[in-house]
Amino acid sequence: MTRNSAIVLISCLDKKGLVNTITHFISKYNGNIIDLEQHVDQHEKMFFMRIEWDLTNFKIADNKIQTQFNIEVATKLEMQWSLHFSTQPVAMAIFVSKYSHCLFDILARYQSKEWGFKIPLVISNHPDLEQAVTPLGIDFHYIPVDKNNKKQAETQQLQLLKKHKINTIVLARYMQILSENLIQHFENKIINIHHSFLPAFPGAKPYHNAYERGVKIIGATSHYVTADLDAGPIIAQDVEPIRHTDTIADLVRKGQDIEKIVLSKAIWSHINFKTLVYKNRTIVFE
Amino acid sequence: MTRNSAIVLISCLDKKGLVNTITHFISKYNGNIIDLEQHVDQHEKMFFMRIEWDLTNFKIADNKIQTQFNIEVATKLEMQWSLHFSTQPVAMAIFVSKYSHCLFDILARYQSKEWGFKIPLVISNHPDLEQAVTPLGIDFHYIPVDKNNKKQAETQQLQLLKKHKINTIVLARYMQILSENLIQHFENKIINIHHSFLPAFPGAKPYHNAYERGVKIIGATSHYVTADLDAGPIIAQDVEPIRHTDTIADLVRKGQDIEKIVLSKAIWSHINFKTLVYKNRTIVFE
Amino acid sequence: MTRNSAIVLISCLDKKGLVNTITHFISKYNGNIIDLEQHVDQHEKMFFMRIEWDLTNFKIADNKIQTQFNIEVATKLEMQWSLHFSTQPVAMAIFVSKYSHCLFDILARYQSKEWGFKIPLVISNHPDLEQAVTPLGIDFHYIPVDKNNKKQAETQQLQLLKKHKINTIVLARYMQILSENLIQHFENKIINIHHSFLPAFPGAKPYHNAYERGVKIIGATSHYVTADLDAGPIIAQDVEPIRHTDTIADLVRKGQDIEKIVLSKAIWSHINFKTLVYKNRTIVFE
Amino acid sequence: MTRNSAIVLISCLDKKGLVNTITHFISKYNGNIIDLEQHVDQHEKMFFMRIEWDLTNFKIADNKIQTQFNIEVATKLEMQWSLHFSTQPVAMAIFVSKYSHCLFDILARYQSKEWGFKIPLVISNHPDLEQAVTPLGIDFHYIPVDKNNKKQAETQQLQLLKKHKINTIVLARYMQILSENLIQHFENKIINIHHSFLPAFPGAKPYHNAYERGVKIIGATSHYVTADLDAGPIIAQDVEPIRHTDTIADLVRKGQDIEKIVLSKAIWSHINFKTLVYKNRTIVFE
Repeated sequence: MTRNSAIVLISCLDKKGLVNTITHFISKYNGNIIDLEQHVDQHEKMFFMRIEWDLTNFKIADNKIQTQFNIEVATKLEMQWSLHFSTQPVAMAIFVSKYSHCLFDILARYQSKEWGFKIPLVISNHPDLEQAVTPLGIDFHYIPVDKNNKKQAETQQLQLLKKHKINTIVLARYMQILSENLIQHFENKIINIHHSFLPAFPGAKPYHNAYERGVKIIGATSHYVTADLDAGPIIAQDVEPIRHTDTIADLVRKGQDIEKIVLSKAIWSHINFKTLVYKNRTIVFE
Repeated sequence: MTRNSAIVLISCLDKKGLVNTITHFISKYNGNIIDLEQHVDQHEKMFFMRIEWDLTNFKIADNKIQTQFNIEVATKLEMQWSLHFSTQPVAMAIFVSKYSHCLFDILARYQSKEWGFKIPLVISNHPDLEQAVTPLGIDFHYIPVDKNNKKQAETQQLQLLKKHKINTIVLARYMQILSENLIQHFENKIINIHHSFLPAFPGAKPYHNAYERGVKIIGATSHYVTADLDAGPIIAQDVEPIRHTDTIADLVRKGQDIEKIVLSKAIWSHINFKTLVYKNRTIVFE
Repeated sequence: MTRNSAIVLISCLDKKGLVNTITHFISKYNGNIIDLEQHVDQHEKMFFMRIEWDLTNFKIADNKIQTQFNIEVATKLEMQWSLHFSTQPVAMAIFVSKYSHCLFDILARYQSKEWGFKIPLVISNHPDLEQAVTPLGIDFHYIPVDKNNKKQAETQQLQLLKKHKINTIVLARYMQILSENLIQHFENKIINIHHSFLPAFPGAKPYHNAYERGVKIIGATSHYVTADLDAGPIIAQDVEPIRHTDTIADLVRKGQDIEKIVLSKAIWSHINFKTLVYKNRTIVFE
Repeated sequence: MTRNSAIVLISCLDKKGLVNTITHFISKYNGNIIDLEQHVDQHEKMFFMRIEWDLTNFKIADNKIQTQFNIEVATKLEMQWSLHFSTQPVAMAIFVSKYSHCLFDILARYQSKEWGFKIPLVISNHPDLEQAVTPLGIDFHYIPVDKNNKKQAETQQLQLLKKHKINTIVLARYMQILSENLIQHFENKIINIHHSFLPAFPGAKPYHNAYERGVKIIGATSHYVTADLDAGPIIAQDVEPIRHTDTIADLVRKGQDIEKIVLSKAIWSHINFKTLVYKNRTIVFE
């Protein structure tokens, strides 16, 4: 399944001939389109596209595609766009506290090579999960966070992220709020899992709140982190029916299964360059 | 499937011997238990039960069961309880505005005799749906509601409800807020359908709000109506996944299918005496 | 939401430049693409596309598009393709027996104008549901079917289908097997609903079989009818969890809700020209 | 959440006074019922119950309950029944081949102490997963199986199962068929996960078959192993919608998430003594 392909993600105002112009560029240089998904948001008059093509025999060198696509396509059509290569997987850092279920789910996929990605770094505000991480050859850093050392902890985190050339951060039930500074460094590159069906039950203790409200379905939401807590663009959600027989402990137990699967689905979309963000909403290609 | 059975719904503080005392009462008078579902909420220390028994050969006459159960069981155990007979179906009124999907779904079940219940009355603040109702032998009353005639409209509604001996009201996308007075007359007997996954998106235009928030799943919620808008005890909920390709019109279309099914499920539980309310939460027996 | 648009559905062997050629044709004649969904089945090396464009200001007259697209695009690229217009809705006949839930669901959508389609004709092997049909201005024909009159009944059906210019048949729980002749007349134009999760439990009495097997989920399947019973290309499926407390009657009750929703979803895809069939599988565009 | 409780699972022909007799026994000896779930299968005239009571202050010693319940309740009412103690967790062996996702999911729950159970033993016909197992203090035995050594391998397996006092076996995608002899030793105590929605697609390569048949939903099934392949009593099932865009590799990827969650749900029910088997169907208490 290993491809040598280029992936372009595009957002721009909708206008006639967009698809034609883009596909013409690829055809012209002998690229074979593997996958094309486009969507026009009629409400916003916006055009979104993900296009992937085989680079075998493509007549532009990898390091020239950015420039050439800009010249021939993107600039005149006023596109926001990004270029990715299937051979350059994201480098992911995981932030975790004490709950292990999401971390273990990610590490299981990492070990089985289900995903083609790298995890050079795990950062935690608790030392508990180190033994699950280091045997896999992943750096584990215990950085405690409290009221007084927030700034200092963040500096340490940023240094580690830089050192390991991290371009995607996953908050795998990391029970701390990130600073706006860190969030700005990684815009639409930090993925959080929240243990409720957002926008229901944001903030702390969503399972307790769900129990009190007496809902018949619980859920989990994975989203990009923005400065507004639990309000960033949603990537994936799922739910599970519950009954009056379920205690709060049952909600937590059932919820953790949804959390880990939803988070992993969001990660999968992200690392395969299948997500675009527009106005606090995501376009998630298949 | 027509039974001649008695159904008792019980709520009380949990204590030892409750199940034993109740089932002993039924055994003693030669009742055969058809169905027993009990639940102890350990958090609230509350005991909830639904018990149904065959009345063939039961040694207490139907009209004496209330008194005898009180004397032998309920009073000393300080129970909240209610008695129902499978042979006495609820009499239901439907309130509706212009949207027809929920009304049509209920009427289809009524026509096919899927449910053993009576609908003597439909009230609407629009005349549009009369032709769907009256051919079925159901009274249709057009009672317009505006700022100035609210009190008067309610009086008219209450008279009709009384005249038809209504004991259950279904708001089948009735776009008006009921008065506290009417709600008090029908405590835990008015079922509403709200077109969102409550507590997310209460109030008007939930599909628009869901679209703006960029959720990946939409839903519908059926609940008992209380004085707090969209905050009453939830009976049933369901959801449907959506994608970035779905417009608001798509959400409305997909949502209407969930609305009608969720509302009908809630009605089914209610008319089969399978619901209990405790502290804004429902116990829904199967 | 009324559009004046053309829709083209395409299947062909995948080759370079397909998307480019097709979109170029539309751009060249001043068409504005409203919707484009394409899919390459890498396994089969097949290309599938649904493309819809606005006909306002399109420089080819509606009745010339077929010829012109063939000349400029389809013939040289060896495409299987079909052309549809949003202003020419399908004409649908419904075949039904005694179960009313699917019929009522379709008629409710018809009455509320949820779907832009015509139902000139309902055919039934029982007279029971006539009163639900004729008041809506739809022709109802009672054509009994038994061992001896099959051929004759079919002739009568075919005449009625021809007379009403029917191009889509929906079997809304029609409990008779259609002849191969009738099926050939309407290839990939007859939609059935089967009350199980196919390929599990084909044939008669799927709910009984599901109960006996002790499954924990039941389902319904809508598919195009082929000469092989319950084996045609699947358009839509859905499921519902069940428990050991559910009797066969409960399965039937819960299942009927799934049946009607799944059938209506399949119809929606079909009448919006969003389905393609390839080797007993469907491509269902969104 | 650690309880000191007794759990009794009962199956018998339905008759009057069953619940009364059982609950009377517990009340009489000062037991406090924590949980009672009973179900009468009207079709089979069978009574099923799970009852759990607090042993604090219970007037019969743990090791006398079996005898006393037989004398006072079970024998005269001709019950099939079993007694379990919350303080005596099951001892589980896992059989695994090369696929790691189910094993990793179970081990993650084991490490996080989500479940109160013991895993003394993992047996595999491949050496690959040893490194994931032994660091957790679990015995790993590599027992290759081929046409010629089946008998010998089974003998070795049985010795290990006996040595570790195993009473529950989980086949976590173990790609070998167990002998009837081994199955008889562990009747209703071997849990398998099959990667399809049974009874659809039994046997090998269900994802390939699902792809060929063109289903729109895939699933997984956890069941007790019987001599009939993939035909034992189903404990849990779940599904996931798919689209025409999904390749077989996508089905495998999406399916593995369902497999591991469904298997873990079935294990949870089993180790909490919430399952009963009757005529190839399971009663799964909540």
